[in-house]
Parts: sequence; structure tokens; C-alpha cells
Amino acid sequence: MKRPVITLLTDFGLHDHFVGVMKGVVLAICPEAAVVDITHDLSPMAVGEAAFLLGCAYPYFPSGTVHLAVVDPGVGSHRRPLAARCGEHLFVGPDNGILTYPLADAPAWHAVAITNPRCRLNDVSATFHGRDVFAPAAAHLAAGMKLEELGPAVDDPVRLDLPAPRETSRGLEAHVLHVDRFGNLVTDLKRDLLQQWLGGEEAEGVIIEAGQGSLRGIKSCYEEVPEGRPLALIGSAGRLEIAINRGRASDRLALTKGDSILLRKG
Amino acid sequence: MKRPVITLLTDFGLHDHFVGVMKGVVLAICPEAAVVDITHDLSPMAVGEAAFLLGCAYPYFPSGTVHLAVVDPGVGSHRRPLAARCGEHLFVGPDNGILTYPLADAPAWHAVAITNPRCRLNDVSATFHGRDVFAPAAAHLAAGMKLEELGPAVDDPVRLDLPAPRETSRGLEAHVLHVDRFGNLVTDLKRDLLQQWLGGEEAEGVIIEAGQGSLRGIKSCYEEVPEGRPLALIGSAGRLEIAINRGRASDRLALTKGDSILLRKG
Amino acid sequence: MKRPVITLLTDFGLHDHFVGVMKGVVLAICPEAAVVDITHDLSPMAVGEAAFLLGCAYPYFPSGTVHLAVVDPGVGSHRRPLAARCGEHLFVGPDNGILTYPLADAPAWHAVAITNPRCRLNDVSATFHGRDVFAPAAAHLAAGMKLEELGPAVDDPVRLDLPAPRETSRGLEAHVLHVDRFGNLVTDLKRDLLQQWLGGEEAEGVIIEAGQGSLRGIKSCYEEVPEGRPLALIGSAGRLEIAINRGRASDRLALTKGDSILLRKG
Repeated sequence: MKRPVITLLTDFGLHDHFVGVMKGVVLAICPEAAVVDITHDLSPMAVGEAAFLLGCAYPYFPSGTVHLAVVDPGVGSHRRPLAARCGEHLFVGPDNGILTYPLADAPAWHAVAITNPRCRLNDVSATFHGRDVFAPAAAHLAAGMKLEELGPAVDDPVRLDLPAPRETSRGLEAHVLHVDRFGNLVTDLKRDLLQQWLGGEEAEGVIIEAGQGSLRGIKSCYEEVPEGRPLALIGSAGRLEIAINRGRASDRLALTKGDSILLRKG
Repeated sequence: MKRPVITLLTDFGLHDHFVGVMKGVVLAICPEAAVVDITHDLSPMAVGEAAFLLGCAYPYFPSGTVHLAVVDPGVGSHRRPLAARCGEHLFVGPDNGILTYPLADAPAWHAVAITNPRCRLNDVSATFHGRDVFAPAAAHLAAGMKLEELGPAVDDPVRLDLPAPRETSRGLEAHVLHVDRFGNLVTDLKRDLLQQWLGGEEAEGVIIEAGQGSLRGIKSCYEEVPEGRPLALIGSAGRLEIAINRGRASDRLALTKGDSILLRKG
Repeated sequence: MKRPVITLLTDFGLHDHFVGVMKGVVLAICPEAAVVDITHDLSPMAVGEAAFLLGCAYPYFPSGTVHLAVVDPGVGSHRRPLAARCGEHLFVGPDNGILTYPLADAPAWHAVAITNPRCRLNDVSATFHGRDVFAPAAAHLAAGMKLEELGPAVDDPVRLDLPAPRETSRGLEAHVLHVDRFGNLVTDLKRDLLQQWLGGEEAEGVIIEAGQGSLRGIKSCYEEVPEGRPLALIGSAGRLEIAINRGRASDRLALTKGDSILLRKG
């Protein structure tokens, strides 16, 4: 049997014992698991941000990986605890939209509500289902339990409305989805849609209005512009990014999550 | 043989190479170990905070886990390096009170001073016993060495004076032990003691004076009060916590570690 | 076969999914690997800082460990992706000086440019070679691929000019290489060179001018001076460090990376 992999993505931070304890629960059930942190530094309760990073990360893990994603402002209330198979990956988390991207990506998915009491700790607290409900469920899946054993099928998992680029009279409007550690601005404009919009025109002629900057052309790496200059390129998420060579675009262009940028053909 | 688990809890932070190096030392001695971080983000030298988080975390790990806890302001002086078995868990750390909670929890414990030179690196620095003394000792325990082989028995490990709730003429006074990542205030009032103090009276009638807030009742989850409202509940550590639904109680109520709150029967 | 160990050292931070994704790529190629973080909290693009911490950390890992170090301001440009064997350790990273210390330490080394397309992901982005080039190469090495299979030999890897102590008419001038989490100032003066310079004179007579402080003698642990007092000692990196017992030398002495200190014989 292949070594099971479980990823963790939460807003629990690394200041407390929360993430470590979830790993303890996982290892008590599935001792052979490799447990990998995606991030725990999400803004508290930022479900959309969690969903986006989960969507970026999961495809790079081995098939069969169990992705445990817990950003859970509704913990202890009536939101359902979910487990799902989306393509070759498994997911566990609260039913609040955190699985939006894998549900959208997968040609076929199956989701269940986690109700089987054998998949929970004996004492379930009201405030830490990451430890008491989700970690045990993920560990049981990683240890070979079938998804269907966790509970009854759910056919209407919550999905977030995702921002999407739109054509306007002024050009193609895209939106900043994420500001990364380096200040790069990741947008909702994917490579394919950009190509389609260009319709054969040269990418180097495109004008991009991005906050306080106006850029020309889609570059292929940071070093194509001088140090300190802004550029647009297709980043590692396969999406249009606005960056500054060896600098922080978010600071210099005064743009942040949710802001719009505009692309016009040259 | 079961896969060994070693947890790490330090004040070393993640900025330097300290934690990584301890893991290197562990894996050189016990290659099969699963090494799990509890936290490394403790305030430098905050032994009490370390002790509290260790006490919250260790029970969720598999039996036989070795918990390596290093907050060590006295490194290089004459404080003893300790290893201990407390119930089904093993612990390694400086003799400064960091093991207070597991020593208090366990019906029986056995502690030793780590003196066996085979359990240390060849060169022991004066400033980094986490790497040179504690990590090797923990790894040898995880690899199967008997506790008694590490050194002579210690029957007087240092223990911290732990804050405890006390009855006053005004009511039951409890104390904030920890402010978590979300601004929740975790107190020294455990569920059992609360029940005992209530003596059959309704939890929903209790009045709680907590800094700038006055709360009524013990709730069972955050969502029982409107967004932005404070509440008291039994948190995931089995202790009374003061929280704000989707907000930060520490900020809003101006309370921090060490502060008192007062419970009165309604 | 021994369990493979891979270390990660980057400037990617823990806010995004970058580090987690690299681990996903590693585990897809080498499922048995133990993956250990050295640090990801380097200042963005700080190649010198990365090189220093890598140099401090790698010797404590088991022989055969693959050290993956990615601080890569030139990603996507023409800098070469490198892999190297230095003594008993393997290294993977951009050819920008990040491997300076192991190259200097090793009596013999062999380096190659990573060109073998089998060691890369199918789609190589322009901005995230940590995921697309370096992680796969490290994982293939850990899984047993020979260094020579990765690509052609490189005999001129980039090396940084490292600061070094120098004798002046006023005394021995050393330099702060790193400020650690506790505010300790780690210098470029190694134990051996210090001994040599002392030439048999007593270490306790040395006068050290360090920013706003003047210290006497080389101590052997923090507790040898009263709380709050500065001291000099040989730290855990085998280098002269300036510290304050239970305090932050960097703040109190107003010293930081790159600053000089002066040692005079007493």
C-alpha cells in the first residue's frame, strides 16, 4: 500500500497547539501518514482565501491524497461536516464553500456528510471540530476507510461565487484574487481565457491598467524588465499576475485583493 | 514496532535553523520517527506558556509519543536536563517546570536526569542543548532506549505554581491562562470545577464579569450569540473561555494573560 | 534502504501554498521521504542569509540528506539550476551562491547543471522553479537517481564573497553575520581563529567593543553574567556571539547584520 498523504490547510496559525494536536489525532489513527502543511496563516475565517489556496495546491499532490481544510467560523452550529472525492483527490472540511475549486475542477465528484460516530473523537467539543471531527475523518480515509462509510451523500455542497473576468466596453476586466508573500498580485484571468480573448493578437501589445501602473505586454519572466519595474506575466498558478522585478507590486501599485485591473488590446 | 512519534515545542521560532537542526539530529538517531511541531512561537523564555500548551496538546498523541519541550533560559547553567514517563507519554526537557502539567495529570510518573554521554552529541555547546542534549535523548527514547538508561532517577522535578480559581465573597474568581490566535481567553476554570461550583444551578443564569464586558450564561457554541457579541463557553481545552462570535475577545474586552474574571450565580 | 531525508530552505514564507506544494511534488516522486523545514522566513531574495543558515544546519543531518535551498531572485532567467554533492550531503538550488558554505567546507565536491527533462515537471512555470525544477530534482536524488544523471558537470558554481575577520592596528575586527530570533549577534569569528589569535593568552582578558557595549572576556554560558548584562561567548554555530543574558543584544547594543565588532587583548 502506498504511503498515505494528508494535507492541512487552516486559519489556526502556528502560535497555539491547534495544528500540532490535529496531527497527533491523525497519527493515532493513521500512523504511516505523511502530514503536510499547506498553510495555517490564513486570515481568521477567510473561507475564500482558503478555497483559492487549496485550489492552487491540491493538484500537485499524489493521487489519493486527503486534503483537510478547516476554516470554520460556523463551528458548533448546524453547518455540515463534509468529505468528498473530486477526481483522484479526497477532501475533508466544513460545508461552507472551502471545497469550491476542487468541486469545480473535477469532472465527477461524490460528497458525504460526516455522521459516522466511529469517525469522531469520543468527546466532540463545540469549538474545535478540526481536532474532534475533521482530523479523525481525514485519518480514517487515509487509512483506507471508504468515503461512503463516513455518512450519507450530499448533493448540494456549498459553493462560493467565484470572481471571473468580464468583457466591458473598455476592455477585459480581471480581479485580484490573492496577494502573495512577495507582493505579487494573482488575478482570476487564466491563461486559456487570455489566449481566447487575444484571439491571435500579440500578447506583447496588450496594455494593462493596474492601479497606479500602466503596463505593456505579457512578459515571460521577472528578469525581462529592469529591477524595480512592474510587469504582467502568467504566474505559477496559470493565471495573469502583476509583479515587480525584485519588488512588491501590491505596495508600489496600491492594489489589493478584490481590486480590478483592465486589459486592452494594443 | 509502531512508528515512533516525537513532538517539538520550543521558543526557538521559525526564523532561524534551530528547529530544523533538532529534527536533523532526531532523524540521524531515529530515522523512522514522525516529528510533529506543537508550536515554536512561544514568547522567548515563557516557561509557563510552554507548560500550558504542552498540557493541552500531549493527550491527543498516540501512547508512547516522546514530547520534546525546550524553553530553556538557564541553558548551560546547572539546571538539570530531564526525561520523564508520565502515564503513557514520555517527556524530555529542562528541569524548570515545563513538565508541570503532565506530572500533575499522571497517576504515576518516573523522571531521570539525562547524564548518559551516549545520549548526547559529542560536542555539547553551552547555548543549544535543544540540539546537543534534548533532541538526542528524545530520539534515543523514541528508538527504544529505556528511560532508566538515560540517567539517575529524579524525585523532585521543578513544578510551577499554577493559577487556580478561588472562591471569594464576590463570587468565583478565575484567571486568564492563555490568549489564543483568535483572541479567545482561556481560563484556569475547568469544566468539572465549574459544575461543582454551580452545584446544580443553571449555567444559563451565571453572570460573568470579564474586563469591560458582563456576560450572562455559559453558551455551547459561538453561533449562539449574534456576530460581534461576547460569550462564555467551555472551550476545546475543557476550560471556561471568553470569546466573541467572529471577533477578538482579548481586544474588545481588554483582557490578557494573568487577568481575573469573576463568575456570580444569577 | 535508509529512509531518505530532504530539507527545505526558502524565502517563500508560510503565508502561501508554496512550501506545501513543493512537498507535494517531493512526495509524489519519493513517497518515503522525511521532509524537514530549515526555515522559510528568510528576507525575500536574501541569498547570503540563506547560505549562512544552510551552512549552519546541514552538518547535523544524516549523511545522504538532500538539501533543497531556493532563494531565487533570478528565477526564469539564465541562472543555472544546480545540484551538488559536497562530502556526504547533496544539495539542490539555483546557481547564485546559496551553496557557498558546503562548497567551501567539503574536501571534495561535484556539481551539475539540472538539465535532464525527466527531473522536471512537464510544465515548467517561469516563476516557481522551486516547485517545477528543484523539488523534482531533489526528490529524484533522494529516491536514488545518481547526481550525474541530472545533467552535465559544472566546475564554476557561483560563490559568495564571505566576510572574514581581519587584523587591524586596533585589534581583531569581526563582523555580524546573523541576528537570531533571540537578538543574539552571530559573527564570522570561528573558535579556531579566535584561539589562534589569542596565541595562548587568556580569553578572559579580551576586551570586545560591540556597538554601544564594551565587554570583557569570553564567557562559557549566558548565566555567567547577571540577567540583563551583555556577554561574548562561543555560540552553537562554533562562532563568537554577542548576547545578553535573558535579553536582546541586537536591540540593547544597537548592532545588526554587517556591523563590525573589535577584539583587543587585555
